[in-house]
Amino acid sequence: MKIVIIGSGNVATVLGRKIKTAGHRVLQVYSRNLVNAKQLADELDCTPVNEWQMIYPEAEVYLIALRDEAIFEASDMWIPQKGLVLHTAGAVSKDILKNCSGNYGVLYPLQSLRKEKKNYRHIPLLIDGNTADTLALIEDFAYTISSSVQKANDEYRLKLHLAAVCVSNFTNHLYALSATYCEKENISFNLLKPLIEETAMRLQDYDPRIVQTGPAIRNDQETIEKHLHLLQNYPQLQHIYKIITMSIQQ
Amino acid sequence: MKIVIIGSGNVATVLGRKIKTAGHRVLQVYSRNLVNAKQLADELDCTPVNEWQMIYPEAEVYLIALRDEAIFEASDMWIPQKGLVLHTAGAVSKDILKNCSGNYGVLYPLQSLRKEKKNYRHIPLLIDGNTADTLALIEDFAYTISSSVQKANDEYRLKLHLAAVCVSNFTNHLYALSATYCEKENISFNLLKPLIEETAMRLQDYDPRIVQTGPAIRNDQETIEKHLHLLQNYPQLQHIYKIITMSIQQ
Repeated sequence: MKIVIIGSGNVATVLGRKIKTAGHRVLQVYSRNLVNAKQLADELDCTPVNEWQMIYPEAEVYLIALRDEAIFEASDMWIPQKGLVLHTAGAVSKDILKNCSGNYGVLYPLQSLRKEKKNYRHIPLLIDGNTADTLALIEDFAYTISSSVQKANDEYRLKLHLAAVCVSNFTNHLYALSATYCEKENISFNLLKPLIEETAMRLQDYDPRIVQTGPAIRNDQETIEKHLHLLQNYPQLQHIYKIITMSIQQ
Repeated sequence: MKIVIIGSGNVATVLGRKIKTAGHRVLQVYSRNLVNAKQLADELDCTPVNEWQMIYPEAEVYLIALRDEAIFEASDMWIPQKGLVLHTAGAVSKDILKNCSGNYGVLYPLQSLRKEKKNYRHIPLLIDGNTADTLALIEDFAYTISSSVQKANDEYRLKLHLAAVCVSNFTNHLYALSATYCEKENISFNLLKPLIEETAMRLQDYDPRIVQTGPAIRNDQETIEKHLHLLQNYPQLQHIYKIITMSIQQ
């Protein structure tokens, strides 16, 4: 299919590569910033543009991979007339696109995407469309770039987005606070990486609710007190330690 | 070396297997519960015992892999006279063992160990000993069962134990609360697993502090409000959501 990619960030870049690898033809990359547009366009062997009115009207798919606020702007500024218009956001209704085209929907990658990383294997795609026909078209398109495709309406997608925030953004924040703690205490954060991996990978075999361990679930108040004492100079992590420990103990 | 393993739980079992595979001779497995002792002893091809006075005095290493409180009990109840006595706990001082033997120390596996899992590849071992000679002996022993061995005194080990709680027990609790949320909302927790894995695995390439994403760091208050509304029937997760969101925004 003939595709225009709107955006040049992590999602645009990773999905753009998948789309090209799948054999589709990327016509253009749009970005407000021409340098960014050019960088991705060069990689995808197509034309960079930085003005809405320069976007070709003849593409079959317009993939909007922008920040949430920018999707609103795009849907105001630009009407492709025909073609399928998709956004890639977890927490934005598909209907934001209803004035853009008669065929619109969502292709939300439930994955943490970084443009520096070239070889993503598992990118689950959650899809939605404004009509059954449109959804069928989006499904066919989605399967060309991922083997994991699931239909998800606005509500279902928002719920998964929330869960994704909890298991990814929040765990990453725990990693980040711990990395700062280790750095300041001169202990090696690297030593923790095998444990972090194991904790994530064991979900393939275990329900997380049956493998909870640690001082909180053992009600090991002595260790908890030692830990809180060590965290006296780390109020953010200390507060989170208390709250999650109480939550585990409930 | 000739080893006695004291304990029959996850740590005793996984380290027992590593010790046997490394070519050491396990003489006995002690557990208060003879059925548990026998199960591990059968696997390690040795004798089960459930009374302290039945433990052979001629072993070279006594590995105490018990819950923290039980280490205290063991160190009170039992004096092996000679031989190296090790415990495996992150938050317990080595000196709890000072009445057990002239040679004692710690072999703390910084990993989440489950007896059902047979093939652990990365088990970093943190070691400590009461004298330089003892520590050298423990180091030699540790390297026979792991390629990742690091010396860590009580204070260093406790700090790493604290960080381990944050990156493993706490992240697992986030997985657990999210699994319950998904179950009750009829959404698929399985769809989140590739994201969870990626979030952990990308630490190989990125400092977690530079890859923080999500509505909190974007100050996307609209999405945060939507999420908090969805969590109104999940007060534990809603409270943690608020606390971690505020922490990310700081």
